[in-house]
Amino acid sequence: MKMKARCAPCLLNRVLFESSLVTKDEKKISYVMGNVLKRMAEIYSDKKSSAEIATEIHGYAYELLGSKDPYKDLKEKSNEIALQLIPKAREFIEKSEDKLKAAILCSIAGNSIDFGIAGSASKPEELANKFEEYIKQGLYHDDVDEMKKYLKGSVLYFTDNCGEIVFDKLVCEILKGYDIHLTLVCKKYPILTDATYDDVKKLRFEEVVDEIITTGKFAVGIDFYGISEKLKRKLQEANLIICKGMANYEAFSEANYKPIAYLMRIKCQSIAEAIELPAGINVVKLYK
Amino acid sequence: MKMKARCAPCLLNRVLFESSLVTKDEKKISYVMGNVLKRMAEIYSDKKSSAEIATEIHGYAYELLGSKDPYKDLKEKSNEIALQLIPKAREFIEKSEDKLKAAILCSIAGNSIDFGIAGSASKPEELANKFEEYIKQGLYHDDVDEMKKYLKGSVLYFTDNCGEIVFDKLVCEILKGYDIHLTLVCKKYPILTDATYDDVKKLRFEEVVDEIITTGKFAVGIDFYGISEKLKRKLQEANLIICKGMANYEAFSEANYKPIAYLMRIKCQSIAEAIELPAGINVVKLYK
Repeated sequence: MKMKARCAPCLLNRVLFESSLVTKDEKKISYVMGNVLKRMAEIYSDKKSSAEIATEIHGYAYELLGSKDPYKDLKEKSNEIALQLIPKAREFIEKSEDKLKAAILCSIAGNSIDFGIAGSASKPEELANKFEEYIKQGLYHDDVDEMKKYLKGSVLYFTDNCGEIVFDKLVCEILKGYDIHLTLVCKKYPILTDATYDDVKKLRFEEVVDEIITTGKFAVGIDFYGISEKLKRKLQEANLIICKGMANYEAFSEANYKPIAYLMRIKCQSIAEAIELPAGINVVKLYK
Repeated sequence: MKMKARCAPCLLNRVLFESSLVTKDEKKISYVMGNVLKRMAEIYSDKKSSAEIATEIHGYAYELLGSKDPYKDLKEKSNEIALQLIPKAREFIEKSEDKLKAAILCSIAGNSIDFGIAGSASKPEELANKFEEYIKQGLYHDDVDEMKKYLKGSVLYFTDNCGEIVFDKLVCEILKGYDIHLTLVCKKYPILTDATYDDVKKLRFEEVVDEIITTGKFAVGIDFYGISEKLKRKLQEANLIICKGMANYEAFSEANYKPIAYLMRIKCQSIAEAIELPAGINVVKLYK
């Protein structure tokens, strides 16, 4: 997805949010804002990917803030709260005819979290409140049946946020029942609330996937210039790429890897326009 | 009020909003955003007044958009809707023991409109929906009785938005009952949804005030370097300055004119912090 005008203030609001996680010093926050504005003014372009610009802006903000992981506590809290919701999720999946679809729906409800952007949960606690509501909404766009046809051979699963990864594990558990080689791809370095290798190890994803690798480079979504030869080959050879969340959509929609299924809650107008679906909905969209 | 970090994305969102009023062309809007970001990066400083920065940003955005008055239609619609609410407002004032306080409360409820900023009405129609709710909230901070003591001699009344000026006229009608010389000060040039000389003439403010003058220069709130000698003298000699809305607060709180009463609905955290009151409330605050 290309950078849109409205992504600029949204990104700045997120910088503001992550600054407030690190410091209460208004002078410092203003210093960060002033410098980030300068960087944003330099790099803003509607010809660039929004993920690329977001990567540079957050990287610079982290540097100015002197923090490698502003969202650390929020991530832990998100996982905690999501774990408490697991019995409810399992019950919903058990009762459902299509268990894969049900688990995917849980993991998309988990994707409602994106702290610091408008139209998204602002506290981990909101996940608990909104979980059932989002499940009830179902999938506005539902390519799950079509997606199932590609569940053979090598399948890559790109994770997004902490909290939702707890439900991603339920999805992977069901995917394990298919005759596939499942590779989970998470972040190597902390960025926003994204799940890192440490996070997925703590949740023992090795129980449900065949392999865990990382995107390799500090990036919102994925920076294709920073991935390993191994991941590059896997992307080219995959029978299906499953992508969770908006940031992965922002990055992958600028590349050409297919077939690819985007699983997310659409939380902003820019993504909604790009994927040609409304905002505020749950979606599984496959590009063959 | 000094510029705060959070004012930067807020201001950019407002530029986005006014751009969307002028054009649907995404390329154009992105061009405006790119340029406004550069200007903002140049001038951003927590040592400057937020009103000063907002003036420069909006002035530049108007220039880039090729529009002298992006909010023209919204302003007309706001006045129309406010006029429909007048019977309700008059009834409320009639029934109230303190008629000045009641009229002020109506005019502050009218101040709920500030299109394009978070925490504010986004459509003129919302004024109608929220009007009664905001009236019911009453004044969270109420210096009206104290303010009355200064109602003698020369009183200046600085207007804010269209829509709310319809209720300002009710306030002026009651102020007329006091032994004062009442000067209404509105904008000379259109800026945001602010009432201009044309707007107040259309509403026949000459029926309720002794004099109507303008702030003189294109500015969010007021640019004290651009006012006439006459207004300067009036500001120095006034027995009371009444200021409607956040933008006037942002500008006047950087000057030293007193006694001054701020009448507004607090719609953002920056104003709330500066005036040391919560956001989402109605306030009449007097500085002697």
